Amino acid sequence: MTLFLGIDGGGTGCRAAVADTQGHVLGQGMAGPANIATDVEGAAANILAATTAALAQAGTGTFTDLHAVLGLAGANVSASAARLQALLPFATTRIATDAMISAKGALQDHDGIVAAMGTGSVFAVQRQGVVRQYGGRGFVLGDEGSGAVLGRALLAEALRAADGFTEMTPLLRDVLDEMGGMEAVISFSFRARPAEFAGLAPRIVAGADAAAERIFGAAAQQVADILTHLHGNSPLPVVFLGGLGPHYAARLADRWQIRPPLGTGLDGALWLARQGGK
Amino acid sequence: MTLFLGIDGGGTGCRAAVADTQGHVLGQGMAGPANIATDVEGAAANILAATTAALAQAGTGTFTDLHAVLGLAGANVSASAARLQALLPFATTRIATDAMISAKGALQDHDGIVAAMGTGSVFAVQRQGVVRQYGGRGFVLGDEGSGAVLGRALLAEALRAADGFTEMTPLLRDVLDEMGGMEAVISFSFRARPAEFAGLAPRIVAGADAAAERIFGAAAQQVADILTHLHGNSPLPVVFLGGLGPHYAARLADRWQIRPPLGTGLDGALWLARQGGK
Repeated sequence: MTLFLGIDGGGTGCRAAVADTQGHVLGQGMAGPANIATDVEGAAANILAATTAALAQAGTGTFTDLHAVLGLAGANVSASAARLQALLPFATTRIATDAMISAKGALQDHDGIVAAMGTGSVFAVQRQGVVRQYGGRGFVLGDEGSGAVLGRALLAEALRAADGFTEMTPLLRDVLDEMGGMEAVISFSFRARPAEFAGLAPRIVAGADAAAERIFGAAAQQVADILTHLHGNSPLPVVFLGGLGPHYAARLADRWQIRPPLGTGLDGALWLARQGGK
Repeated sequence: MTLFLGIDGGGTGCRAAVADTQGHVLGQGMAGPANIATDVEGAAANILAATTAALAQAGTGTFTDLHAVLGLAGANVSASAARLQALLPFATTRIATDAMISAKGALQDHDGIVAAMGTGSVFAVQRQGVVRQYGGRGFVLGDEGSGAVLGRALLAEALRAADGFTEMTPLLRDVLDEMGGMEAVISFSFRARPAEFAGLAPRIVAGADAAAERIFGAAAQQVADILTHLHGNSPLPVVFLGGLGPHYAARLADRWQIRPPLGTGLDGALWLARQGGK
């Protein structure tokens, strides 16, 4: 029996879908986090739990029937990917980045650029079926335009305003007051995870404040520069994904042809599995 | 008996100097780290150890004879400063920031601007004896122009060059190769402390590479913007301190009157103690 398994796994949870050779989805399942950069064994357990649930809903098949493509956060750390692969019992297993399955879900086999703008950010270009990933180098060194980077920029701007180096706006004043002043902001900055910085992003993209507008404008320009580079001499349609995707799409709509995604990352993993893991 | 104690404490060690009412230094001592943001009890123990050594060299006086000014990293966290103060047995104790004692050591009572450019960065302005501190908000949100921020910028630029977004230079290629490639650079970025990023700074200020020159030029412009703001309408002499101080002084020498420091941070703490902790 031949079945296909798609997995979309990340830091908050993992989803599984099982499909037959015609591409009909027979069952789906969910389980806990699957971030192989931080916990390979935990990721394996949750992937198997989500798969077990999907097989139960399908009412047919076992692990060894499954040709699997797993799109996982942290999959670009190759040592972790190899360790995970050794723990999984499927007929075939291919591990891809979350960026790859998002791109395949958004574009299938059409040429295009995908800009995933969430807590982090990552870009992918597909030309003639070949996907190449750009950016997405994490909160400290990369993730241009991401929610976490926007939130960090807002706090840095609030401290500069408190120093008198830049204009104090209502939003900057609110943020300083809510967090308990400069000392509290500095302490927060040393312990906060990217998702906590990203919690400030909705107030930046709302755009009603001069500082927010300046920060989001600079980030949009940075994203535009990246996209311009990725287009090169042959412009492609652009798909924006992630929680901040619609905001960047609205801001940059006059520059490129912007399209909605064809499907989700889970759809992309399943699509890749049915293509023989290409 | 009235004696004065100056302490200069930070993450790597703490130094003590004891002086008489005429300002003659009678004894000095050293001990381990005194960073009250991370370890108040350890800081207290090392401050007392350094003071004990200074008193032994002086051959006179006890803890209760000492009017102390302590310049400490982390002293802007007021709860920690209060906890430390309660642990110390001196006749009088005043806790100041490391920025304050550096400024007083560099300027005594002269008007001027101090730019301390080390692993972190902090700026201070003294006008008519009143010191105000600017910047120095830590590696995540501030520390403009610091060694750690320069090192982080170099790694971010190396990743952008690896993505083809910017020119790959010999230095960027060397750094990527030495660290073991993009994955290794990203992993490093999540675990490295500011001092480890700052370890790359000497290669940036050496300035023989196009990427290094671009990064250091941008940082120098940012520092110049801060100094321009701090000068306001009445320009002051500028003193550069820290390992990167001479590099910024050389780069910005044509803009302002640049002076060497009158003394060290330890001199500044002792000077403040003799001024009655003003």
